[in-house]
Order: sequence, then C-alpha cells, then structure tokens
Amino acid sequence: MNKPAYIHTTPKDNVAIAAGLLGLHSGDVIMENISATELIPMGHKVALKTFQPGDPIIRYGYTIGTANCIIPQGSWVQEQMLQIPDAPILDEIKFQTSPIPSFETLDGYTFEGYKNEDGSVGTKNVFGISMSVHCVAGMANYVIEKIKKELLPKYPHVDDVISISHTYGCGVAINAPAAIIPIRTIHNLARNPNLGGEIMVLALGCEKLRPETITGTSTKSDILYMQDESLTGFQDMVDAAMETAERHLKKLNARKRETCPASDLVVGMQCGGSDAFSGLTGNPVAGFAADLIVRAGGSVFFSEVTEVRDAIEQLVARAADEDVANKLIAEMKWYDQYLEKGDADRSANTTPGNKKGGLSNIVEKALGSVVKSGSMPIVDVVSPGDRVQKKGLQFVATPASDFVCGTLQLAAGMNLHVFITGRGTPYGLSMAPVIKISSNSKLANRWHDLIDFDAGPVALGEKTIEEMGWELFHYMLDVASGRKKVATDVLGLYNDLVLFNPGPLT
Amino acid sequence: MNKPAYIHTTPKDNVAIAAGLLGLHSGDVIMENISATELIPMGHKVALKTFQPGDPIIRYGYTIGTANCIIPQGSWVQEQMLQIPDAPILDEIKFQTSPIPSFETLDGYTFEGYKNEDGSVGTKNVFGISMSVHCVAGMANYVIEKIKKELLPKYPHVDDVISISHTYGCGVAINAPAAIIPIRTIHNLARNPNLGGEIMVLALGCEKLRPETITGTSTKSDILYMQDESLTGFQDMVDAAMETAERHLKKLNARKRETCPASDLVVGMQCGGSDAFSGLTGNPVAGFAADLIVRAGGSVFFSEVTEVRDAIEQLVARAADEDVANKLIAEMKWYDQYLEKGDADRSANTTPGNKKGGLSNIVEKALGSVVKSGSMPIVDVVSPGDRVQKKGLQFVATPASDFVCGTLQLAAGMNLHVFITGRGTPYGLSMAPVIKISSNSKLANRWHDLIDFDAGPVALGEKTIEEMGWELFHYMLDVASGRKKVATDVLGLYNDLVLFNPGPLT
Repeated sequence: MNKPAYIHTTPKDNVAIAAGLLGLHSGDVIMENISATELIPMGHKVALKTFQPGDPIIRYGYTIGTANCIIPQGSWVQEQMLQIPDAPILDEIKFQTSPIPSFETLDGYTFEGYKNEDGSVGTKNVFGISMSVHCVAGMANYVIEKIKKELLPKYPHVDDVISISHTYGCGVAINAPAAIIPIRTIHNLARNPNLGGEIMVLALGCEKLRPETITGTSTKSDILYMQDESLTGFQDMVDAAMETAERHLKKLNARKRETCPASDLVVGMQCGGSDAFSGLTGNPVAGFAADLIVRAGGSVFFSEVTEVRDAIEQLVARAADEDVANKLIAEMKWYDQYLEKGDADRSANTTPGNKKGGLSNIVEKALGSVVKSGSMPIVDVVSPGDRVQKKGLQFVATPASDFVCGTLQLAAGMNLHVFITGRGTPYGLSMAPVIKISSNSKLANRWHDLIDFDAGPVALGEKTIEEMGWELFHYMLDVASGRKKVATDVLGLYNDLVLFNPGPLT
Repeated sequence: MNKPAYIHTTPKDNVAIAAGLLGLHSGDVIMENISATELIPMGHKVALKTFQPGDPIIRYGYTIGTANCIIPQGSWVQEQMLQIPDAPILDEIKFQTSPIPSFETLDGYTFEGYKNEDGSVGTKNVFGISMSVHCVAGMANYVIEKIKKELLPKYPHVDDVISISHTYGCGVAINAPAAIIPIRTIHNLARNPNLGGEIMVLALGCEKLRPETITGTSTKSDILYMQDESLTGFQDMVDAAMETAERHLKKLNARKRETCPASDLVVGMQCGGSDAFSGLTGNPVAGFAADLIVRAGGSVFFSEVTEVRDAIEQLVARAADEDVANKLIAEMKWYDQYLEKGDADRSANTTPGNKKGGLSNIVEKALGSVVKSGSMPIVDVVSPGDRVQKKGLQFVATPASDFVCGTLQLAAGMNLHVFITGRGTPYGLSMAPVIKISSNSKLANRWHDLIDFDAGPVALGEKTIEEMGWELFHYMLDVASGRKKVATDVLGLYNDLVLFNPGPLT
C-alpha cells in the first residue's frame, strides 16, 4: 500500500486535506491512531478528531466553521456539516502597530521591457484602440481586423492590436456617485504600461462619456468622432481610422526592449476556479514569489474583496500604518453595503466548483485566498478602477469575478498577471501576459497546453514552496522579457475586458 | 428668399421646430406676425409667443416644461430656459376603459422565412454558440474563427456563426432577487427564432450558472464542459466543439425559406441618438409601419422605460385592459426604485447629442419616443429578459441603452429590428437584421452606407408619413425575406450582446 497523502497546514488544525490524485481511502492511516473511515476525495477535509455539534473546525489555524452534527474522527468533513461563522464586524477591528517584518532586499534581478515616457515599463508592445461608448464597438472590431491584415505585417515589433472595448459610455446614469468607477477604469485602462501611451479613441459624438475623459493628458492620443460632419460614410471613417492607426503603429514599432530592474514589474495576483489545494500549493508558491518581487522593489497587488472579507483581521494586522488599515476597512464596508443593496452578502461568493473542489464556504476560501499575497506589509489600498501609485504590496479593491478583477487590475497598471486555478479556466487577457498556475498536477497534466506553471509538486512533497516560489519568480522575469510566452498568448485566447459598474443604467 | 421650413405638430403647440437643413434665420417669417429673431438651428424650437416665467411650453400637445425666464416670440427656446415638470405620479394614474380603436386587418402580406419547430419563424439562419460563463468567451471566439474558416464554406445556407457571449455566469450573486433578469435573458437569447433551435453551449464546469438553465427543454442543444475529465487539453476541447458544431451546421444547412404570413414577424422598435426630428419623421413613420404589422397580425414591441416614463399616462390610456395598465405601471415603479437605489432618476436619460439635436429634456424626448409605437392598443407587457407570448403591440420593459435594449429585445423573440436615429450610430446586431432609419436627410446623405431608410423627406414635405410608413412596411418584408440586406449585415458591423444585470457582483 502506498503512503497515504494528506496535508496538515498548522498544528492547531483539527482537519487535514486529502492529497494524492486519488484522495484517501477507507483504512488509510493518516496520523497516529487516526485512519480514514471512508473515501475522501482529493482536496477535501478529513476529521482528525470527533466533532460534537458546536465544536470549531480549524484550518490554516483559524475557525472556518462550527460542526452542526457529530462528525466522527477519520470521516469526510462535508460542506453541509459546517455552520459558517459571522463575518468579522468591521467597526470592532482595531489597528495595532505591529513590528514591520524586516526583509532583505533583492538586487540585480532584471527583465527586458519597453520603457514608457511616464516612467512605467511595458512587458508587451501593444496598440490599443479605446472607445467612448459601446455603440462604436463593431466599428472597432472592423478596423482591428483590417489593421491586422493590412498594417500589422509591416510593423513586426508591435505584438498585437487590441480593442479596449466596454459596454459603458451611454445609457448610463453618468452623474450617479458610483459612475466614477467605470469612468476611471476606462481612463486607466488606456494608461496601461503595455500600451506605450499610444492610444486611438473611437467616439460617436452624441454619447455621455466624453472621449477626453479617456485620454486625459498623459497619453499621445487621437480621438475620431464618427459623427464628424467631415466624414462621409463608413468607408471614410475606416480610412481615417487606418491613417491614424498607422501613425501610432510606426511609433510603437520603433520601440526596443531594454534591460529594466525587476522593480519595474507591477504584478497582479488573482485566483479563480479555486479548489482546496489552491491555498496549499498554488497560492503559497505565488505568495512566495510575490514576496520576492516586493523584495526586488516591485509592485504587487492582490484583490477580490469578497475573498478577503473573512480574513480582514489578518490583513489589517499587516497594514503598514493606520491609514492603510482604515482604507482596507473602508473598502470592505463599501462592498458590504453594495452587496446589501442587491440583497446579497459575501456568502454568495463560493461556486459549485469551489465546493466540489473541497472548499466548504467563503471563510475557508478566504483564508486560502490571502495566502497569495505573501507576507509583506500592505503599503497602500487602491479603490476599484484606480491606478497604483506605490511600490510594494498593495490591495486593489475589486469584485472577485475573474474577468472583472483582471480588468480592474489592468487599470491599476498591471504589466504581469499571475493567476492560480484548481479547477481550470481558459481565462486570458490580451493586454498583459497571464501566467496560469495549477494548484494540482492532475489539472496541469490534463490541461497541458493551457497551464503555464504547475504548483502540484508541493502537494506531493516533491518540491518545497520556497523552491517553487523561486522557480516562479524566474519564470515571471522570462515572461516579462518576452523570452517565454504564456499559453493564452500562444493560442490567442482572450476574455473581454469587463467593467465594474455599480451604478444604474438609464 | 426660400420659404422658411418649420414643423408645428399640433395646434396647441406654442413652439415650432426649425426644419430645413440650415434651420431658421433671423427675419424668416414663420407664421402670421411671427418672425425668427435669431438663428435657430435645425431641430431646435422657436417660440411662437412670448413666454413669461412659469408659462407652460407645449409640444406634441403636452407641456414639456415651464419657462424659467422671459422668452421673446421668435427666439430660440433653449434647454436651460425650461424647468422640467415632475414625473407623473404612478399611484395617481387610473386606468379607464377606453373604446378600443377598431382597425381593418391586413391580409395577404407575406415574407420568406425559416419555420421553426416551436412555431416561431426566423428571418436569418444563424448558428449560435452560447456559454454558461464568460470564462469560456475566448474559447468561443477561437472556435468560431475556426468554424468560419473550415466549416462554414461547406454549409452555404447557414448565414453566420455567432457567439451569444455575455459577462455573466460566475462572480455574481446568483441567488439575489435581480439575478433572474440576466439568467432568463441568456436562456431566451438562445431561443431567438433566428437560431433555429440549434444551440451549442460552451461551459466550464465550476461556474454558478448551470448550463442546463440556458438550454431548457425547447432547444436541441449540446453542452460541452471544458473541465470534463475526458478532454485532454485545449486541442481536445476544440476538436469536440468542432465536431458538435458540424452536426448543428448540417441541420441548419438543410433548411429552406418558406412563404410565411406577415403575422410571423416579431418586430422590435428602438431609437437611439435621437434628435428633435426623431419624433416628427422617423418615429411616426416607424409607428405607422408598426400599426401595419399589427394589422397584419404580427407582434410589435417598443421598450426603453426611462423614455416612456414621462408619457406613461398616454400609454396607460392605450392599455387593452386593466391588467396591462397595471403591468405598465409596475414596470415604471420597479425602474424608479432601481434608479433611486443608484442615486439617479429618469432625467439621467438625455445625452449631450440629444440636446445638441434640439431635445431639451426627457419629457420632450419621451413624447417623441412613444410615437414609434404607433396607435394600436397595448396588449401585453413583458419584463426585462422575458419572451413575448402574444401577437399585437406590446411593451417590453428594458433600459434605454441601445445595446442593452437590443439584447433584451432579441431575448423577447425579435426577428426584425427597426432602429431610428437622428445623430447617427453604427449600431448593429448579428442575431437579427437592424433596419436603420434616419430622422433627417442630412444624416442619410452623409452616412449613405450606414442608413437603410431615410424618413427625412417627411420633414421637407416631400412625402407623407403614411406614404413612407407603407414604404417601410414593404422594406421590412424584403429584409425579413433576405431579398434586401441591411447596411450592418453588408459590412458585418455588430455590437456585443450586453445583458441587464441589476444584481451585484461578488
């Protein structure tokens, strides 16, 4: 018989996680005097003691719920056996100055990037076509197809032409308080480092969102109005767009990669389609690499409000100062109220896939989710759609929805994306490379052409988190330099940009 | 000097609209003893009397506002001179049985359509690929491109392959009360008559929206799960999708157009980018044609809650019975509350383009907007995302946002779309033909390859509303039969489908 595989995160934990590809079988000895009493699928929890109703069930050293029935030692701890604890009360959380952990800085790590005039650095050289309103989205697609066919082959140093498409711009209450979120997102998307400041904006003319709002002053942009009376018909509009596009393509094509310090990286961490291994393999490995980026002077951020809501006490304890702590709590409060207005709460977060993968509830999911932020102090909090201003670890407040989170992370200035999944998703972004990490080797083997980095060996004891964290760090530098291409870029597999618009449509 | 052109809608009106391409000039005699005292741009209002502060300003026979300053006779009545009236109080509106106008039925009008098993009829023969979650949208695009290249040429009777893409499915509070709207929209989009009941659904596996919700029982659908353990890698998924797609394409390719009565048409009326002519030319012409379709036994619906809100008393008076009247008021109430939750109201509707085009406020816009519904009794009211069940004129409650309204009208079962614009928009839908009507010839001339039907001659007195209404009716039958192709279909110019999701993201 093989040695049964399981993971016991902290000595305080009174459950363990069935590892190995086949899970635990009845009779498998787990620890001294504890054997599995039934089949426990991979990623699911086994009881290390007999729980009485009301007993806390502890994972990651924290209570993820209380037993609502007797759960015998060695048996499968299933979702419906746990009573979810109340969310931490935000007004009761106090910031206490904790000694900032000292860390060794990392010097000498570099990547080959595209330097921008505003000081940011691109990891790709992409021409972006933005728009002030969705009405012109079809026109943008038409023009992009034509550019790809007729112009792009002439400008081989330009990686791609993409549509910064969105469903905003008109038919919306543009003066409602929440409108600021989609508006600044559209603006900041156009400022993403990978677009090199060369933006063409397609506009209609009669829409509510004024195109100048998108371009601001920091990009060398052109605005083309379809309703411009000097343009006669669609072909005229297309001709104008092609001419403008070529001017930008020429400039982008002249750019060259240069050696940049790793501190120019702006890395967004996200997980999606999580399973119970995400918090044990993929997320800790990503968290270790996040620490390395911060030590090298770079920016790293994590997001997903409803996924950290239940771990807020841990995050507040990591705040660099009281201002950051207050901002963290304020973002949680805003989101609580937003959900309440829609008659929902944070428990709406978990998915059928999470549960099938062994995550019983949002508390367990949250504790595993924050692991990907590493261990550094949180130096700033950025509201949805805003752009990061600092180096170091930051929290960018976004919904947990993968594509919405990714879009807002791009707006925050992300030039490299790390995405951890347990169940698997073909998620990809055209604006920045997405490094897809699997939490288990079963997925990595099956999805051999969609997963970039397998953190599964950690669960099998074959590699340590530290080893794999370093591997990931080096892999990130390779991808940022264009030396390695991620799976979704090889396949051209991209999601739409999806805004977060909490305001009403009209 | 040319005869100055202006339009005076009803004898009660104390303003007239400057017509002609150049508007009215100072000194132009409008009526007996009334001359323009300044330049009044095309589509804008001229005062037929001197208004004192507080005087009602009447257009279409209704008060569109009160003067907030002295407005001399013959001068330009500008937006900022009007105080908007309060919205009609919904609880005070009473339904009074009004004699249903009798109308002559129209017999013998037909079109060539694709008959479906569920009794509906398609005007196009399109293969639709739906999805349970946006995570697989990139995969859908990949597969569609491959189908278009490798399969579609083998099946020439299939018009197109389209993605029923949406940003829903996960990362949403799927049990929140408002979630029913996007969910039923996705379901009903897959049931659109132009898709012939042949639907392929791409799914992930771990998402919240279960794919079976999309297909229901009425379509011959296949669901492909990317997380299916029998699929090894992306190429396997693509192969499976291609094989399934080909089965559906074969069936769709075997269909032939057959002669169908005009009563099989389901026509959605919408306007967007309106100007002051929309209510005088395009909308009345479309309204006349709408009456003809209803007289021929077909279904016609109009939408855009915030654009009819101020004309609700007129609509309630046209309700076929008290139940319809109550449903109309209930939809207005729901939307009032929805806007209020987001700290907005119906005044947020008008756009800079509307105002530039001469529409002072939402009241004036609404009075012109409802004209496109014609004059028939309203026999039913359909909630957002629901499908129409009846023949005759109906109100399908949707936001006024063009692309959201169009998406919900497709979900309502629309097989032909009539869209009136004054400012101009390249708006198009891949699922159903969009007949684009211009309210003025200036736009039609400039946008010669984007406008399908010019209602401008009505403003110039060259044709009557009745004449042009009949022309439009015949044009609609031609488009529905595939004999004529609308501009956006010629160019392949399509907007995305955009859901209405009033519920929260998680």
